[in-house]
Amino acid sequence: MQFHLNGFAPGDPEIADPTMRHPAPGASGALPDQVDVLIIGCGPAGLTLAAQLSAFPDIKTCIIDQKPGPLLRGQADGIACRTMEMFEAFGFSERVLKEACWINETTFWTPDEKLPANIVRSGRVQDTEDGLSEFPHVVLNQARVHDFYLDVMRKSPAALEPHYARRLLGLDIAPSVARDDAHPHRVTARIERLDPTHGNQIETIKARYVVGCDGARSTVRSSIGRTLVGDSANHAWGVMDVLAVTDFPDIRFKSLIRSATGGSMIIIPREGGYLFRLYIEMDKLDVGERVANRNITPDHLVAAAQRIFNPYRFDVKEISWWSVYEIGQRLCDKFDDVQELDTRSEPCVFIAGDACHTHSPKAGQGMNVSMQDGFNLGWKLASVLRKTCAPALLHSYSAERQAIAKELIDFDREWAQVLSSASKSTANGSTPKNDQAETQDYFVKHGRYTAGTAVLYRPSPITGESTYQHLAAGLTIGMRFHSAPVIRVTDAKPLHLGHTIKADGRWRLFAFAGSQDPASPKSGIHSLCEFLTEAEQSPIRKYTSADDDIDSVIDVRAIFQQSHDELAINVMPPLLLPKKGRFGLVDYEKIFCSDTRSDIFTLRNIDRKHGCVVIVRPDQYVAHVLPLDGYKSLAAFFDGFLIQR
Amino acid sequence: MQFHLNGFAPGDPEIADPTMRHPAPGASGALPDQVDVLIIGCGPAGLTLAAQLSAFPDIKTCIIDQKPGPLLRGQADGIACRTMEMFEAFGFSERVLKEACWINETTFWTPDEKLPANIVRSGRVQDTEDGLSEFPHVVLNQARVHDFYLDVMRKSPAALEPHYARRLLGLDIAPSVARDDAHPHRVTARIERLDPTHGNQIETIKARYVVGCDGARSTVRSSIGRTLVGDSANHAWGVMDVLAVTDFPDIRFKSLIRSATGGSMIIIPREGGYLFRLYIEMDKLDVGERVANRNITPDHLVAAAQRIFNPYRFDVKEISWWSVYEIGQRLCDKFDDVQELDTRSEPCVFIAGDACHTHSPKAGQGMNVSMQDGFNLGWKLASVLRKTCAPALLHSYSAERQAIAKELIDFDREWAQVLSSASKSTANGSTPKNDQAETQDYFVKHGRYTAGTAVLYRPSPITGESTYQHLAAGLTIGMRFHSAPVIRVTDAKPLHLGHTIKADGRWRLFAFAGSQDPASPKSGIHSLCEFLTEAEQSPIRKYTSADDDIDSVIDVRAIFQQSHDELAINVMPPLLLPKKGRFGLVDYEKIFCSDTRSDIFTLRNIDRKHGCVVIVRPDQYVAHVLPLDGYKSLAAFFDGFLIQR
Repeated sequence: MQFHLNGFAPGDPEIADPTMRHPAPGASGALPDQVDVLIIGCGPAGLTLAAQLSAFPDIKTCIIDQKPGPLLRGQADGIACRTMEMFEAFGFSERVLKEACWINETTFWTPDEKLPANIVRSGRVQDTEDGLSEFPHVVLNQARVHDFYLDVMRKSPAALEPHYARRLLGLDIAPSVARDDAHPHRVTARIERLDPTHGNQIETIKARYVVGCDGARSTVRSSIGRTLVGDSANHAWGVMDVLAVTDFPDIRFKSLIRSATGGSMIIIPREGGYLFRLYIEMDKLDVGERVANRNITPDHLVAAAQRIFNPYRFDVKEISWWSVYEIGQRLCDKFDDVQELDTRSEPCVFIAGDACHTHSPKAGQGMNVSMQDGFNLGWKLASVLRKTCAPALLHSYSAERQAIAKELIDFDREWAQVLSSASKSTANGSTPKNDQAETQDYFVKHGRYTAGTAVLYRPSPITGESTYQHLAAGLTIGMRFHSAPVIRVTDAKPLHLGHTIKADGRWRLFAFAGSQDPASPKSGIHSLCEFLTEAEQSPIRKYTSADDDIDSVIDVRAIFQQSHDELAINVMPPLLLPKKGRFGLVDYEKIFCSDTRSDIFTLRNIDRKHGCVVIVRPDQYVAHVLPLDGYKSLAAFFDGFLIQR
Repeated sequence: MQFHLNGFAPGDPEIADPTMRHPAPGASGALPDQVDVLIIGCGPAGLTLAAQLSAFPDIKTCIIDQKPGPLLRGQADGIACRTMEMFEAFGFSERVLKEACWINETTFWTPDEKLPANIVRSGRVQDTEDGLSEFPHVVLNQARVHDFYLDVMRKSPAALEPHYARRLLGLDIAPSVARDDAHPHRVTARIERLDPTHGNQIETIKARYVVGCDGARSTVRSSIGRTLVGDSANHAWGVMDVLAVTDFPDIRFKSLIRSATGGSMIIIPREGGYLFRLYIEMDKLDVGERVANRNITPDHLVAAAQRIFNPYRFDVKEISWWSVYEIGQRLCDKFDDVQELDTRSEPCVFIAGDACHTHSPKAGQGMNVSMQDGFNLGWKLASVLRKTCAPALLHSYSAERQAIAKELIDFDREWAQVLSSASKSTANGSTPKNDQAETQDYFVKHGRYTAGTAVLYRPSPITGESTYQHLAAGLTIGMRFHSAPVIRVTDAKPLHLGHTIKADGRWRLFAFAGSQDPASPKSGIHSLCEFLTEAEQSPIRKYTSADDDIDSVIDVRAIFQQSHDELAINVMPPLLLPKKGRFGLVDYEKIFCSDTRSDIFTLRNIDRKHGCVVIVRPDQYVAHVLPLDGYKSLAAFFDGFLIQR
């Protein structure tokens, strides 16, 4: 898709007339008096969380933002492979694939040895290693990512729309002991209306849970007495989205440029084929100085970019968005309202995204990590509110995500230093050329990290020990489920097993068959299904209410080693052909086999003799790997956090 | 995607609440007085045509339908590979891929030799041969295909909406000689409003062109004195879309069943995972008898299906749509209003789809061929109205599409006979088992035909002679451009070359490089670009107006044999990096190279030494193959139908 040729125009580029791309106005009327979850902020973290909660019609959510309407331009643009996998679960990956710019390769530029005033290409690397994900690394205006989430929310069972022009003034939080079933709404939020017709009117709303996705100056964070701790590198950078004419040949590649005297610059090609973004290294700041102090203008950014681009022309036609910022890495010590040593209280206020971790934008991590915060918290809140899980589960949000944010901060500090040529050459006196080789090495070495696929959650009640990891060595416990192709047996459709995981709050139990005859009622799959269907200890029997479909809490799917035409579905266990809904129609989408062109047993190193069970969390992380007949461990695992309704 | 579990619900299944899936109401108010094109009928032919015309803001189109609003259920469902390729050009293939049911394999069932009252599986075949198209064969409710077209129209530059509840009463057509630039609107249509508030009000509308997409009982066809000629096989069939429980194991495969005494049946699994369609052979009719005479009810269809399914259970829970029909093949001799021997008149009334060819639905051809009618006519009307092509081009619509319809009728007659067990065994006395083997052979043999990829247009002013066909043996002149993977040089993105062909009315000129140094200004690609840019005879110079982008009539793209990192874009001809739009921004999407994992030169048998030029029509058909330096032939080809503005 090509667009923005005659100027940047916000909204859906498939609508030919830019004036018809009206963003939805949001919810009208007053806020509700009382909700299950109040989300402050319509950024990536808040919208991911809201989209997840909107899947459940029985959860009452309210999401507010200070801005008068949806974001239209600017902000983040990087979408990591791991994020695309999550978008697939939310049902809009195909829209992003179509509209976004794909980052296929990154090139590196350095001063010409003979003519150091000129830059020359010093290297190029494939952006994402083969097989890391079935999705590419792409870039797209953050505003469009918001639009897709807003669309999911609007179409969802909860039909959720944000309330715009609302500013949180503060929270009153009742102590944890006050929470009982009669008074579950522990938090009272005071909110000011900012729209002209309701000028400064105050609304109050009671909520069971409040989530602050309200950015680096988070009011929610202040309300729970937490602070962002960290430092600043005292270095100003500029960022701008431009339509420009240049003869720089790599303008449609992600490019890292280090000039001899002009500083460093990063080029990010953008959606539509014409737009691109530049991150431009600007001045070194004095200790404690704020970037605003320097009065940097777009003209300064353009002039700096032109110096770095030498000998190439850079002729700007339109700047659709720009900003300046100083590099800094700051982090909260905990992401909820429960004190470190308090083992009795349950959290009811959380912070996510920039509200609890800020860093430089150039590794393209901010939006991605924030969305994963929202995805991590979303299913947990839903499970507790829907009484599938005990409230203690909510402690795992801060435990898991704060550790991830800490890693991100450490990475970002290092990466920012690698990228800042000035500080770098001052620090070790190496030539820019060597620096750039080092940059390239660093870039390749951390490819999995920046793709978002290196995240690893430590053992906890929802992440098992690695006792049986060898049964599926390629599906690491604590890491995201690495999808692979399979064939659906009932209709021979080739698809990705991971794409059966939707953002619907359900747990998945993938049963990989061993070498036994799949038709035998004594096979591992049959016996497992019998346990799950019949045994008193079966988590499906214990935790699925009789009114719900059999797969509504734990969704069991089997993967066989035979080809689809060697498998007779009439001898499959009934659990794999469950009857659902008001008519008792058969669900034919539970049985898979390996795709011989790309065999999942080989790709993910699954024990062909014994098979195994892989348990996957609602946010796509591998929770456990167990033997097919490890019934006791299986039951014990789910007993650790699911509760009987 | 799984949906319809608790009952069929029309509209977008991504909207959770079925009551919120309001179809758009269509245009309000009176019809315009005067239009360029008046389309009668919002079926597949009419909507494809309307969607094509809506791409041009300078063309005034009106589309009407008798029905009070968009179609919600029933009718056709088969979408051939070729149609998916066209949907890609219209920009919604990814939506169909997501929502539709994929037909991956077809199975064949026949009476059990030992127990003939029971059916058993006699064979299974891959539905579409490998490499035939980059798209699968899918099935989806016709109503959803309409929705996607309506969405394209609504978002288009023309922002087109149908006028519903309008019945065409008749046409007045001024003779061809009366047409001149002062009086171009030769047709006057009288139209009756059918909505209660405007009961029977008559509107008149003047149009340059009228297209009858108004079905088998077409008023437009009668107005131009044409008739459907053909016969009926006097055989009644029933069709129904059902939600049902069955233990028939292939219910999610397309299955062709021939029972010993119950007749034949075809199963088409449908979108959403639960719904399926049955075509059920019913009674033989008396000569001249209409199927309505038999008073066939849904209960009759269910009972007939149950007999055929034996020994499998078939327990219907909901019938979302059903119909009965008699097999017949009928065809018009010409698809426009100009008499066969009249060489001076220009057509101004056309018929498309069921208005000019009707046949049985079971080969899944009707909707597909009708849409291709609309696509074929659409760009031609647009080119004439926009004064890119001379009106004589319009003769080619009937010439091309009537021949295709004739082939379809012949195929359908044969296929209907193969499928009708009763008539078949009466005819040659063979056993049902042998019949079924024959059916399977026939099915495989005609796979390319039913996929829509066998269509071949004969030489004409817009389809060249095969003189240089050997330069690209795999891209047959007169057949649809068979896409293959390539890499875009400027950003290393892997994509399908065919997907650069959008439904925008432009001609494509794919220049495949030979073995010369791509950087040499003497190479075939450079010389061709120089001819196209500089020479007086260049069709680009002659036929592109100075106000338009250089690629607005003929879009030139080059494909090299080297890998992308061996190609320096700074030495490419300027025509391949054209400056466009009000800013003169560079279009970076014209230069490609072969994808080493799937090389287009090998796949399409392109002469590696000499390269070639492949000219592709706006409807994706290969118009010509010429040598890279065949400037004279190239110029002569375009001179045959393009006109100077």
